[in-house]
Amino acid sequence: MDYHSETLTPIFQALADPTRRAVIGRLGQGPASISDLAQPFDMALPSFMKHIRFLEESGLINTHKHGRIRTCTLERKPFQMVEAWLAQQRALWEGRTDRLEQFVLAQHAKETE
Amino acid sequence: MDYHSETLTPIFQALADPTRRAVIGRLGQGPASISDLAQPFDMALPSFMKHIRFLEESGLINTHKHGRIRTCTLERKPFQMVEAWLAQQRALWEGRTDRLEQFVLAQHAKETE
Repeated sequence: MDYHSETLTPIFQALADPTRRAVIGRLGQGPASISDLAQPFDMALPSFMKHIRFLEESGLINTHKHGRIRTCTLERKPFQMVEAWLAQQRALWEGRTDRLEQFVLAQHAKETE
Repeated sequence: MDYHSETLTPIFQALADPTRRAVIGRLGQGPASISDLAQPFDMALPSFMKHIRFLEESGLINTHKHGRIRTCTLERKPFQMVEAWLAQQRALWEGRTDRLEQFVLAQHAKETE
Protein backbone atom coordinates (compact mmCIF):
# COMPACT_ATOMS: atom_id res chain seq x y z
CA MET A 1 0.00 0.00 0.00
CA ASP A 2 1.26 3.47 -0.88
CA TYR A 3 0.91 5.40 2.37
CA HIS A 4 1.19 8.74 0.58
CA SER A 5 -1.69 7.57 -1.58
CA GLU A 6 -4.11 10.24 -2.71
CA THR A 7 -6.96 8.01 -1.53
CA LEU A 8 -6.16 8.99 2.09
CA THR A 9 -6.81 12.68 1.39
CA PRO A 10 -10.63 12.49 0.96
CA ILE A 11 -10.84 10.06 3.91
CA PHE A 12 -9.08 12.49 6.27
CA GLN A 13 -11.15 15.39 4.81
CA ALA A 14 -14.34 13.44 5.58
CA LEU A 15 -13.17 12.77 9.16
CA ALA A 16 -12.35 16.48 9.71
CA ASP A 17 -15.88 17.41 10.79
CA PRO A 18 -17.69 16.72 14.11
CA THR A 19 -21.08 16.04 12.45
CA ARG A 20 -19.54 13.49 10.07
CA ARG A 21 -17.64 11.84 12.94
CA ALA A 22 -20.89 11.62 14.95
CA VAL A 23 -22.64 10.00 11.95
CA ILE A 24 -19.79 7.46 11.73
CA GLY A 25 -20.17 6.74 15.47
CA ARG A 26 -23.91 6.14 15.00
CA LEU A 27 -23.36 3.87 11.95
CA GLY A 28 -20.82 1.88 13.97
CA GLN A 29 -23.84 0.58 15.90
CA GLY A 30 -25.54 -0.59 12.70
CA PRO A 31 -27.12 0.73 9.45
CA ALA A 32 -29.55 3.65 9.76
CA SER A 33 -31.86 5.70 7.55
CA ILE A 34 -30.92 9.28 6.69
CA SER A 35 -33.88 10.66 8.69
CA ASP A 36 -32.80 8.68 11.79
CA LEU A 37 -29.21 9.88 11.31
CA ALA A 38 -30.29 13.53 10.88
CA GLN A 39 -32.59 13.51 13.94
CA PRO A 40 -30.00 14.45 16.66
CA PHE A 41 -28.64 17.40 14.65
CA ASP A 42 -30.08 20.91 14.66
CA MET A 43 -29.42 21.26 10.93
CA ALA A 44 -31.51 21.73 7.76
CA LEU A 45 -31.82 18.49 5.75
CA PRO A 46 -29.95 19.87 2.65
CA SER A 47 -26.95 20.74 4.88
CA PHE A 48 -27.09 17.31 6.50
CA MET A 49 -27.29 15.64 3.05
CA LYS A 50 -24.05 17.41 2.06
CA HIS A 51 -22.31 15.65 4.96
CA ILE A 52 -23.81 12.29 3.88
CA ARG A 53 -22.63 12.82 0.28
CA PHE A 54 -19.16 13.82 1.51
CA LEU A 55 -18.96 10.60 3.56
CA GLU A 56 -20.22 8.54 0.61
CA GLU A 57 -17.74 10.11 -1.87
CA SER A 58 -14.83 9.43 0.51
CA GLY A 59 -15.86 5.75 0.62
CA LEU A 60 -16.46 5.78 4.41
CA ILE A 61 -20.17 4.96 3.98
CA ASN A 62 -22.47 3.37 1.42
CA THR A 63 -26.09 4.34 0.86
CA HIS A 64 -28.88 2.23 -0.65
CA LYS A 65 -32.44 3.26 -1.42
CA HIS A 66 -35.25 0.81 -0.63
CA GLY A 67 -38.60 2.37 -1.63
CA ARG A 68 -38.57 5.89 -0.13
CA ILE A 69 -35.99 5.15 2.55
CA ARG A 70 -32.26 5.65 1.97
CA THR A 71 -30.19 3.54 4.36
CA CYS A 72 -26.54 4.21 5.20
CA THR A 73 -23.95 1.61 6.18
CA LEU A 74 -20.35 2.01 7.29
CA GLU A 75 -17.51 0.71 5.11
CA ARG A 76 -14.53 -0.60 7.09
CA LYS A 77 -11.86 -0.52 4.39
CA PRO A 78 -11.10 3.26 4.58
CA PHE A 79 -10.66 2.91 8.37
CA GLN A 80 -8.22 0.06 7.78
CA MET A 81 -6.28 2.32 5.40
CA VAL A 82 -6.03 5.05 8.07
CA GLU A 83 -4.99 2.45 10.67
CA ALA A 84 -2.33 1.10 8.27
CA TRP A 85 -0.96 4.60 7.69
CA LEU A 86 -0.82 5.27 11.45
CA ALA A 87 0.88 1.91 12.02
CA GLN A 88 3.45 2.86 9.36
CA GLN A 89 4.18 6.16 11.17
CA ARG A 90 4.49 4.33 14.50
CA ALA A 91 6.91 1.81 12.91
CA LEU A 92 9.13 4.75 11.84
CA TRP A 93 9.23 6.20 15.39
CA GLU A 94 9.72 2.84 17.01
CA GLY A 95 12.48 1.89 14.57
CA ARG A 96 14.13 5.16 15.53
CA THR A 97 13.72 4.47 19.26
CA ASP A 98 15.19 0.98 18.73
CA ARG A 99 18.23 2.43 16.92
CA LEU A 100 18.70 5.04 19.69
CA GLU A 101 18.51 2.27 22.32
CA GLN A 102 21.09 0.18 20.41
CA PHE A 103 23.37 3.22 20.21
CA VAL A 104 23.08 3.92 23.96
CA LEU A 105 23.70 0.23 24.78
CA ALA A 106 26.71 0.11 22.43
CA GLN A 107 28.15 3.27 24.06
CA HIS A 108 27.59 1.75 27.50
CA ALA A 109 29.31 -1.52 26.43
CA LYS A 110 32.33 0.48 25.15
CA GLU A 111 32.57 2.47 28.39
CA THR A 112 32.45 -0.65 30.58
CA GLU A 113 34.98 -2.65 28.47
CA MET B 1 -11.75 11.38 26.28
CA ASP B 2 -14.54 12.99 24.24
CA TYR B 3 -14.27 11.35 20.83
CA HIS B 4 -16.41 14.02 19.19
CA SER B 5 -13.94 16.52 20.55
CA GLU B 6 -13.29 19.56 18.40
CA THR B 7 -9.56 18.95 18.82
CA LEU B 8 -9.78 16.06 16.32
CA THR B 9 -11.01 18.38 13.54
CA PRO B 10 -7.74 20.34 12.96
CA ILE B 11 -5.74 17.09 13.29
CA PHE B 12 -7.74 15.38 10.51
CA GLN B 13 -7.59 18.60 8.43
CA ALA B 14 -3.80 18.61 8.77
CA LEU B 15 -3.60 14.94 7.70
CA ALA B 16 -5.80 15.60 4.62
CA ASP B 17 -2.90 16.65 2.39
CA PRO B 18 -0.19 14.51 0.72
CA THR B 19 2.62 17.07 1.31
CA ARG B 20 1.80 17.29 5.02
CA ARG B 21 1.61 13.49 5.31
CA ALA B 22 5.03 13.22 3.58
CA VAL B 23 6.49 15.76 6.05
CA ILE B 24 5.09 13.68 8.93
CA GLY B 25 6.69 10.55 7.42
CA ARG B 26 10.05 12.32 7.21
CA LEU B 27 9.79 13.65 10.79
CA GLY B 28 9.01 10.12 11.98
CA GLN B 29 12.66 9.38 11.23
CA GLY B 30 13.85 12.25 13.44
CA PRO B 31 13.79 16.07 13.72
CA ALA B 32 14.67 18.06 10.57
CA SER B 33 15.20 21.66 9.51
CA ILE B 34 12.61 23.35 7.32
CA SER B 35 15.07 23.60 4.40
CA ASP B 36 15.78 19.84 4.62
CA LEU B 37 12.05 19.12 4.82
CA ALA B 38 11.27 21.39 1.84
CA GLN B 39 14.03 19.92 -0.36
CA PRO B 40 12.08 16.95 -1.92
CA PHE B 41 9.10 19.15 -2.87
CA ASP B 42 8.81 21.15 -6.07
CA MET B 43 7.13 24.01 -4.20
CA ALA B 44 7.92 27.66 -3.42
CA LEU B 45 9.09 28.15 0.18
CA PRO B 46 6.11 30.37 1.20
CA SER B 47 3.70 27.61 0.07
CA PHE B 48 5.73 25.01 1.94
CA MET B 49 5.77 27.22 5.06
CA LYS B 50 1.93 27.29 4.99
CA HIS B 51 1.95 23.49 5.31
CA ILE B 52 4.44 23.70 8.20
CA ARG B 53 2.29 26.29 10.00
CA PHE B 54 -0.84 24.17 9.41
CA LEU B 55 0.92 21.15 10.97
CA GLU B 56 2.16 23.27 13.90
CA GLU B 57 -1.29 24.79 14.58
CA SER B 58 -2.89 21.33 14.59
CA GLY B 59 -0.37 20.24 17.24
CA LEU B 60 1.11 17.47 15.04
CA ILE B 61 4.55 19.11 14.99
CA ASN B 62 6.59 21.56 17.06
CA THR B 63 9.14 23.99 15.65
CA HIS B 64 12.08 25.61 17.45
CA LYS B 65 14.50 28.20 16.14
CA HIS B 66 18.21 27.81 16.97
CA GLY B 67 20.14 30.69 15.41
CA ARG B 68 18.96 30.88 11.78
CA ILE B 69 17.75 27.28 11.58
CA ARG B 70 14.18 26.32 12.44
CA THR B 71 13.91 22.64 13.39
CA CYS B 72 10.68 20.63 13.32
CA THR B 73 9.83 17.67 15.57
CA LEU B 74 6.84 15.35 15.55
CA GLU B 75 4.41 15.35 18.49
CA ARG B 76 2.92 11.94 19.25
CA LYS B 77 -0.11 12.97 21.31
CA PRO B 78 -2.37 13.97 18.36
CA PHE B 79 -1.64 10.58 16.72
CA GLN B 80 -2.64 8.87 19.96
CA MET B 81 -5.92 10.83 19.89
CA VAL B 82 -6.63 9.64 16.33
CA GLU B 83 -5.74 6.05 17.30
CA ALA B 84 -8.04 6.29 20.35
CA TRP B 85 -10.90 7.55 18.18
CA LEU B 86 -10.37 4.72 15.66
CA ALA B 87 -10.21 2.18 18.51
CA GLN B 88 -13.51 3.57 19.82
CA GLN B 89 -15.13 3.09 16.37
CA ARG B 90 -13.75 -0.45 16.17
CA ALA B 91 -15.13 -1.22 19.66
CA LEU B 92 -18.61 -0.17 18.42
CA TRP B 93 -18.42 -2.53 15.39
CA GLU B 94 -16.95 -5.37 17.38
CA GLY B 95 -19.52 -4.97 20.16
CA ARG B 96 -22.14 -5.22 17.44
CA THR B 97 -20.48 -8.31 15.93
CA ASP B 98 -20.32 -9.87 19.41
CA ARG B 99 -24.03 -9.21 19.99
CA LEU B 100 -24.88 -10.67 16.56
CA GLU B 101 -22.77 -13.75 17.36
CA GLN B 102 -24.53 -14.16 20.73
CA PHE B 103 -27.91 -13.85 19.01
CA VAL B 104 -26.98 -16.50 16.40
CA LEU B 105 -25.62 -18.83 19.12
CA ALA B 106 -28.77 -18.31 21.26
CA GLN B 107 -31.01 -19.08 18.24
CA HIS B 108 -28.95 -22.19 17.51
CA ALA B 109 -29.19 -23.30 21.17
CA LYS B 110 -33.01 -22.85 21.05
CA GLU B 111 -33.29 -24.84 17.82
CA THR B 112 -31.23 -27.74 19.16
CA GLU B 113 -33.01 -27.89 22.57
